[in-house]
Amino acid sequence: MTTETYAKYAKTASIMTASASEEIKNRALKNIAAALLENKEKIFHANKIDIERSEKENLALPLLKRLKFDELKLKEVISGIESLIKLDDPVGKTLLSTELDKGLELYKISCPIGVIGIIFESRPDALVQISALCLKSGNAVMLKGGSEAFETNHVLAEIIYNASVNSGIPENWLYLVESRSQVSEMLKYDKYIDLIIPRGSNEFVKYIMDNSNIPVLGHADGICHCFIDEYAETDKAVSIAVDSKTQYVAVCNAVETILVHEKCAARILPALKQKLEEKNVRIFSCEKTLKFINTEKASEKDWGMEYLDYIVSIKTVSTVREAIDHINKYGSGHTDVIVTENTDNADLFMNLVDSGNVFWNCSSRFSDGFKYGFGAEVGISTNKIHARGPVGLDGLLIYKYKLIGKGQTVEDYAAGIKKFKHKPLKNKKFKIN
Amino acid sequence: MTTETYAKYAKTASIMTASASEEIKNRALKNIAAALLENKEKIFHANKIDIERSEKENLALPLLKRLKFDELKLKEVISGIESLIKLDDPVGKTLLSTELDKGLELYKISCPIGVIGIIFESRPDALVQISALCLKSGNAVMLKGGSEAFETNHVLAEIIYNASVNSGIPENWLYLVESRSQVSEMLKYDKYIDLIIPRGSNEFVKYIMDNSNIPVLGHADGICHCFIDEYAETDKAVSIAVDSKTQYVAVCNAVETILVHEKCAARILPALKQKLEEKNVRIFSCEKTLKFINTEKASEKDWGMEYLDYIVSIKTVSTVREAIDHINKYGSGHTDVIVTENTDNADLFMNLVDSGNVFWNCSSRFSDGFKYGFGAEVGISTNKIHARGPVGLDGLLIYKYKLIGKGQTVEDYAAGIKKFKHKPLKNKKFKIN
Repeated sequence: MTTETYAKYAKTASIMTASASEEIKNRALKNIAAALLENKEKIFHANKIDIERSEKENLALPLLKRLKFDELKLKEVISGIESLIKLDDPVGKTLLSTELDKGLELYKISCPIGVIGIIFESRPDALVQISALCLKSGNAVMLKGGSEAFETNHVLAEIIYNASVNSGIPENWLYLVESRSQVSEMLKYDKYIDLIIPRGSNEFVKYIMDNSNIPVLGHADGICHCFIDEYAETDKAVSIAVDSKTQYVAVCNAVETILVHEKCAARILPALKQKLEEKNVRIFSCEKTLKFINTEKASEKDWGMEYLDYIVSIKTVSTVREAIDHINKYGSGHTDVIVTENTDNADLFMNLVDSGNVFWNCSSRFSDGFKYGFGAEVGISTNKIHARGPVGLDGLLIYKYKLIGKGQTVEDYAAGIKKFKHKPLKNKKFKIN
Repeated sequence: MTTETYAKYAKTASIMTASASEEIKNRALKNIAAALLENKEKIFHANKIDIERSEKENLALPLLKRLKFDELKLKEVISGIESLIKLDDPVGKTLLSTELDKGLELYKISCPIGVIGIIFESRPDALVQISALCLKSGNAVMLKGGSEAFETNHVLAEIIYNASVNSGIPENWLYLVESRSQVSEMLKYDKYIDLIIPRGSNEFVKYIMDNSNIPVLGHADGICHCFIDEYAETDKAVSIAVDSKTQYVAVCNAVETILVHEKCAARILPALKQKLEEKNVRIFSCEKTLKFINTEKASEKDWGMEYLDYIVSIKTVSTVREAIDHINKYGSGHTDVIVTENTDNADLFMNLVDSGNVFWNCSSRFSDGFKYGFGAEVGISTNKIHARGPVGLDGLLIYKYKLIGKGQTVEDYAAGIKKFKHKPLKNKKFKIN
């Protein structure tokens, strides 16, 4: 089958998954969890092949670690599925109900988006998590995982597909795309695929955004900032900045630039430098900063760098507004932090920094669907439409309007014979009868 | 100034309009209404120039009618502004609040999208309506109107801009783009413009969708269907189908194809043909239909045609599923109607037809923001993300997450020293203190 045929079949399947009952979806999730457990030796064996091959190919250690699918990962994905089962069915919720006129009732009803294309990194547990999210939200899905995890993904997708279809989920609702060339093909089928969620390297996300008419949900960059205001407490500020930078450097919500108000520079910078250096962070500083601490010198390009490493740039600013303007200019709209004991400055910062996540007195690393309590995360979005910030199940849903009449025509209203009432039905639930 | 400079200034302005107070926004709307009234002779004079020029250029009569801006239109736009003033400020609403842990509170807060590019048709009243919507929702806007309305739009934009800026709305929040070449330029500035809303000809909307990385909200086609089920009442069915087709043929929510169940074809088709012909509708029928009525013969291309005229295609189908499949294949996901007295068929149709608006026993022409009671309409969207169907003020908003802590770092949670609570705060309103 061609990739286009896959996409077409997925579209057809999505019409049916959209109206799959809560019972069938939850049964399928339960059976997927059971099948994963039952076939664990097969999964671990496939994963061993992937790891051995990747070791031979000298895959970097952090990637090898992410590739591993062991008892612990299995336990985690099963616990994830179990929490999804407990969630209310997100499909079919009445979001608005209005009596337009007597016997003419409008309902806004949540529904799945349709076919989601998800391209994800080397973690095979992401495949399980994403499939489960798509199933619960009634979407069909085309998945492409990292090639390092080829064998593991293949086995996992097979187990998930069979367990779900045997539970009554429509055939063709899930496809595992296994070659890179198929991804470029997928990008063409805006007729069949409604949304692409890429999780991976920046270059790849940018490539997708530039090469498809399909809407993309995600972020290309995570250039996050921590601004230490003149009214910041030293210990709190240093602790938040260091955690934001070093708690996990390879992720999008790690801070790349620290901004320090000049009025507290003498107090903050030496302490900050010491703590960063204890964590082996390499520092690039602006000229003003260099008056207070001795580090390497930053150049213009440092302000737009996503290091994803034990590297940070530091800039000393004269005002809160200068910090805000710097962030809005060089940031990527992801996550930005202010540390201050001054409420007005915190308020100004959170209002004027145009990012999906604006934090006051806590680490940028909290910017995450699990930490936000969403249960599961599809990804983090720097989009300004549909979904912004960490995206949970909500991001996989849209709505449709259902209007129920008794033979009404518009001409009667145009001619003034009838008049609209527009009476809210106080979220009266849609029920056909 | 170049178009890029305009766009850049609009972006800067949008940061400030986003935090404009409800008081200032409503005062600005009030002053805009007053200024329009005060300057009405100037507006009418400009409109006269546009109309005279367009008459000389032999602009089609319906377009000339839409171009007219007279006392009635003025009254309408002012009444529109007045209803907008009465609406709650849509910005700054708390959509979710969660206590992640003691002293670590997450708030999801509605906010404007940023800079909206709107390209609209010949109606100059649309300029007033759209500007007012953007102002109320805290967005900056770049507007491009139809060239026929050049003089009227110019005067209207000037009045609106001056009245709003004098009321305290940030400078550069509104730009009127006056040449077509500037539109192609706008499409490049995804760095500054967050959303494009095109209202106009299909070709133009398609051109925009194909030529920009900026998300587009709108619809290229309005291929709407009316399906008359075997359980339809004859009079109701004919009346709904005729209203859907003829009440206003030049609009996107007019029906282009009528589907008739074969079990009621003998009963419905002759009556339908008579009523359509009374309205001078030209009919193209499939072969099955031709067994019941004598009309011109439809060809494959008719099923994908948006006639926007007194023309309709009719197809006889064997099952509800065939009707649904036809609509999902040839339709544009806009608005589709079933006429039936059978609840199960209505339910099936409304669930499986993958359109933004699915209607039971009423005209497709109800698919409209005003008729839905949204007060104002930005446009109708066939997107499957962000906003679908008629889009009101809601479509101009997104949200940001504000997280307020007391110095928390993620390392404490990673190390197991602290644990997340994820306690819902029952939509506790965000308030900084």
